[in-house]
Amino acid sequence: MLEKLTPLAESEKSLVKAEVAALKSRLTSQQQQIKQAKLPVIILIEGWGAAGKGSLISDIILNIDPRSFTVRSISPPTLEESRRPFLWRYFKEIPEAGQFLFFDSGWYGETIQNVMCDGLDGKAYRRRIDSINAFERQLTDNGYLVVKFFIHIPKKIQDERFEKLLDSENTEWRISKADKRENRHYKEYAAAWDKLLDLTSPAYAPWHVIDGSERTKRLQVYRILTDAIASALEKQGQPRQCDAPAEEFPLLAMPKLASVSLDQQVDEADYRVRLKEAQTRLKDLHNRIYRQKIPVVIVYEGWDAAGKGGNIKRVAAALDPRGYEVVPIASPDKHEISRHYLWRFWNRIPKTGHITIFDRSWYGRVMVERLEGFCTEADWKRAYREMNEFEQELHNWGAVILKFWIHIDKDTQLERFNERQNTPEKRWKITDEDWRNREKWDLYEVAVDEMLQKTSTAYAPWHIIESKDKRYARLKVLHILIDALEEALKGRE
Amino acid sequence: MLEKLTPLAESEKSLVKAEVAALKSRLTSQQQQIKQAKLPVIILIEGWGAAGKGSLISDIILNIDPRSFTVRSISPPTLEESRRPFLWRYFKEIPEAGQFLFFDSGWYGETIQNVMCDGLDGKAYRRRIDSINAFERQLTDNGYLVVKFFIHIPKKIQDERFEKLLDSENTEWRISKADKRENRHYKEYAAAWDKLLDLTSPAYAPWHVIDGSERTKRLQVYRILTDAIASALEKQGQPRQCDAPAEEFPLLAMPKLASVSLDQQVDEADYRVRLKEAQTRLKDLHNRIYRQKIPVVIVYEGWDAAGKGGNIKRVAAALDPRGYEVVPIASPDKHEISRHYLWRFWNRIPKTGHITIFDRSWYGRVMVERLEGFCTEADWKRAYREMNEFEQELHNWGAVILKFWIHIDKDTQLERFNERQNTPEKRWKITDEDWRNREKWDLYEVAVDEMLQKTSTAYAPWHIIESKDKRYARLKVLHILIDALEEALKGRE
Repeated sequence: MLEKLTPLAESEKSLVKAEVAALKSRLTSQQQQIKQAKLPVIILIEGWGAAGKGSLISDIILNIDPRSFTVRSISPPTLEESRRPFLWRYFKEIPEAGQFLFFDSGWYGETIQNVMCDGLDGKAYRRRIDSINAFERQLTDNGYLVVKFFIHIPKKIQDERFEKLLDSENTEWRISKADKRENRHYKEYAAAWDKLLDLTSPAYAPWHVIDGSERTKRLQVYRILTDAIASALEKQGQPRQCDAPAEEFPLLAMPKLASVSLDQQVDEADYRVRLKEAQTRLKDLHNRIYRQKIPVVIVYEGWDAAGKGGNIKRVAAALDPRGYEVVPIASPDKHEISRHYLWRFWNRIPKTGHITIFDRSWYGRVMVERLEGFCTEADWKRAYREMNEFEQELHNWGAVILKFWIHIDKDTQLERFNERQNTPEKRWKITDEDWRNREKWDLYEVAVDEMLQKTSTAYAPWHIIESKDKRYARLKVLHILIDALEEALKGRE
Repeated sequence: MLEKLTPLAESEKSLVKAEVAALKSRLTSQQQQIKQAKLPVIILIEGWGAAGKGSLISDIILNIDPRSFTVRSISPPTLEESRRPFLWRYFKEIPEAGQFLFFDSGWYGETIQNVMCDGLDGKAYRRRIDSINAFERQLTDNGYLVVKFFIHIPKKIQDERFEKLLDSENTEWRISKADKRENRHYKEYAAAWDKLLDLTSPAYAPWHVIDGSERTKRLQVYRILTDAIASALEKQGQPRQCDAPAEEFPLLAMPKLASVSLDQQVDEADYRVRLKEAQTRLKDLHNRIYRQKIPVVIVYEGWDAAGKGGNIKRVAAALDPRGYEVVPIASPDKHEISRHYLWRFWNRIPKTGHITIFDRSWYGRVMVERLEGFCTEADWKRAYREMNEFEQELHNWGAVILKFWIHIDKDTQLERFNERQNTPEKRWKITDEDWRNREKWDLYEVAVDEMLQKTSTAYAPWHIIESKDKRYARLKVLHILIDALEEALKGRE
C-alpha cells in the first residue's frame, strides 16, 4: 500500500500554489455547510515520525473556525485508559454533529506500537482489524465522515529530518524514544504499516497515502479532503445502508415472550433464607472479580412496573459500593443525541474489576426509538449488528456481560399500575407516559421478541426473568449472576 | 476536635436497634423528597484506616434507590489528575440535582497525605484550607447539602483491626502502605487531622466526629444525616445568602465602557507585518510554556459582532494544535444546568502546559443569566466572589489567566448587523436573538461595567479591547498575550 503513491506530473507543479489557495477557500465555505448540515467529520492523520503530521494539521485548521474543531494528539494509553477496551479512548472523543475532530495519530499508530513492541499478532491481531473496521463502519453508517491520511516519507528523508531536529536543543525533545526505535527498524515498521493499511481500507473509510517529501503534499491532501466533504454533504440525509448479517454472531435460541410461563413462586420465608445466602455468595464473588480485574456489564430491560428497580436493589445490596455503579438511562441529552447513539454507553463502561449495572440501555434503539420513530428504520435495523459488535468488543476485552429482560404479563402490569395510582406514596412512580406505553404493548412485544432473537449471543446472552413473583425474579437474577462470575473466575485464582 | 466525641448514655443503648431501623426508613422516604425537590446531596466519609468507612457507606446506601446515588472512592491522583488543580477531580464529580454522591475519603484525606508525606505547610497549607472552605461554601450556597463525617478510632483498636486483616490473605490486600504508615505514626496523623478538622468546620458544612469503636456509631450517623436532610429540604427554595466582600480580592481599577475611546486604527500594510511578527513570537512562546508546563486560560467576552471569532482565529493560528483548545460556550445542556454553574467550566480547564480559549464563559452568570432572569438576584450577586475564587484556584495552581472584553459601540454594531443581514454568505451569523439582545444594550452595559469593576483582579485581569478597528483589536490581544507569557516564563527557563 505504501507503494501506491501517485506523484503529480511535472506540468502540474506550477499550478500547485494557486490550486492550494483555491482549495483552502473551498474548505472554508464547506465548513459553514458542515455546520448547517450537522455533518460530523473525523480526520485521522497517521504517518512516519517527522513526516509533518503536526504541521499539516496546523495548516488545515487555519481554514476552519476555531470553535468548530478539536485536535487530539494520541500518546500511549494512560493507566486509566489501559483499564478500558482498546476503542474506548477513541470512541469517547468522537465529535458532535457539525464539528471536526483531528486525530494526530490514533488507533492505527497504537496498533503498530502493539505489533512492534508488545507482540500483537495472530488471532488478537485479526480481532484488532475487525474492531477497527467495525468502528469505522459504525461511524460512517451513522452519518460520520471519516477521512484517513498516511503521510509517507522514505527512510533517507526521515534520517535527515531526525538529524536536523536532534541537532538543536530547542527541537530534540520532539523526537521520542519510540520515534528513534521506528527509525532504527524502519523496514520492519514499513512492512507492518503496509499490512495494516491493506487490511483497513474499505470503501467507506479508504486510506490516502500521501508522499510527505513532495511539495505537492498539501495540494493532494486538500483535494482529497474537500472532495470527500463534498461527497458526504451530497449524501447527507439519504437513507443509509442496512446490511446486518446477524448470522455472523453466535446467536442463542430464545423463546417468544408469549410462550413464557409466569407461574413460578417462592414463599416469603424461603425467599428470605435464599436471598441472604445468594447475597453472601455474590459479595464474596465481587471481591474476587475485583482482585482478578474482571469487568462486568449488566443490562436490565423490562416492562414498566415489572420490578426492575427492586431487582437491581437486591443485587446492589450485595456489592461493595466502591466497585460498582448503577447507571439509569433516560432519554438522551442534547450533547448525547448529537453523537453516535452508542457514545453515551461507551462513556459509561466500567474499569477492569468494576461492575456497571445499566438500568435500561442501548437496547432503547430497537424498542422506544424504533416504535416512537426517533430513528429511521435503517437505523434500528442496523443496530442489532452494531450492538452485537459493541458487546463483542467488551467480551474480547474480558468483560462478563449479562442481559436481563424482566418479564410480566399485561394483566399483572395493570394491577401494579392501579396499585401505584391508588397508593399516595407510590403515585410518583406512575406517569401518563407509562399508560401511553401500555397501549403499545403488542407493538413492544414484537420489538422485544425481535431484539431477543437477534442479540442474544453466547458472549452476551439475554435471560428472560419471570417477575410476576418478584421474589422469584430476584433470586433468579442473583443465581445467574453467581454462576456467570464463578465461570469467569475458573482457572484464574 | 477528635476529642469532641459525645458518647451515648447507658440508658440509650437499649433503644439503639429500634431507632436505627426507624431512621433508616426515614432516610428512604427522604430520598423520594430529595428527588422531587431536586436537592443534590454530598456525603463525605473520612476517618482512620479500618475505622469502617466502607461498611458504613454500604449500610447507608441500602436505604437508597441504587439509581439515585454514586460512590466515589478516592485514590492518590492519577497522572492525568495531577496535571490539574487540587479541587478539579472533586468538582468534576459533584452530583446532579436530586442525586446522592458518597465520597469514601476525599479532599481531606488527600490533604492529610500531602501534609504528612509531601510537606504541605505554611502558606500553601493556609491556601489549601481557603480552597476547601470556598469549595464547600460555594456548593452549599448553590443549593448543595454537604454532610461530613470523620470516623474516629483510637490507635489500640486500629492495631487490633489491622492485625486481624493482615492475618488472612483474603483481607491483607485491604491494608495499603499508606494505611501502615498512618498506623505507625498515629499520633502525628491525629495531630494533623485535629488541626485540619478545626479549620474546616463552618456552619454550612460542619464536621461530625463519630466514635467508630462504639456500637452506637450507626445510630449517630443516621440521626445526623436525616436531620441534616430534613433541614436542607425545609430550607430549599428559600433565597440564599449573598455576602460578597469583593474587597478580599486584589481588584484593579477599570474604566467605564462609556469612557473608552474607539478611535484606534492600524492600516492594512502595517497590520500584515505586525500580525506576522506577533504570531511568530506567540508560536515560540507556546512552545516554551508547553515545555515549562504552564497552563493558560483565556476568556473572550464581548458585544455581538464585535469580532470575537476573527480575533480568536488570529491567536489560534499561532498555536500548536496539539496544545490548545477553543471551547465555545452556549446555553447549558440539561446535565449542566442541574449542577453548580461552574461545573461545566471546571470540566474544561486545561492540563498543565496547555491553553484553553473560552469563547464566552462563566461570566454569562452576571450578564445573560442576570438580565434574562435565568438565576436569582442573590445568585448573580454572589457569583462575582465565586468567579474570583475560581480564578484564584487556577492562579494558585500556576495558570496564566487573561480575560478580554471585545468592545465596540452601538452604531458599529448596527452597521455590522446590517452588513450581515444584507450579505447572503454572512446571513447565518445573525439571528433574531442578536437583535433582541441589541435592544437591551443599555442594561448589558450596566452589567458589563459592574462585572469589570468586580472581577478584574491582579491575577486574572480584564482587558478592554477596542475593536471598532478589528485589526487593532487583534494586535492588541496578541501583544497582551505575548507580554503575559513572557512574564510567566521569567526565571523559569
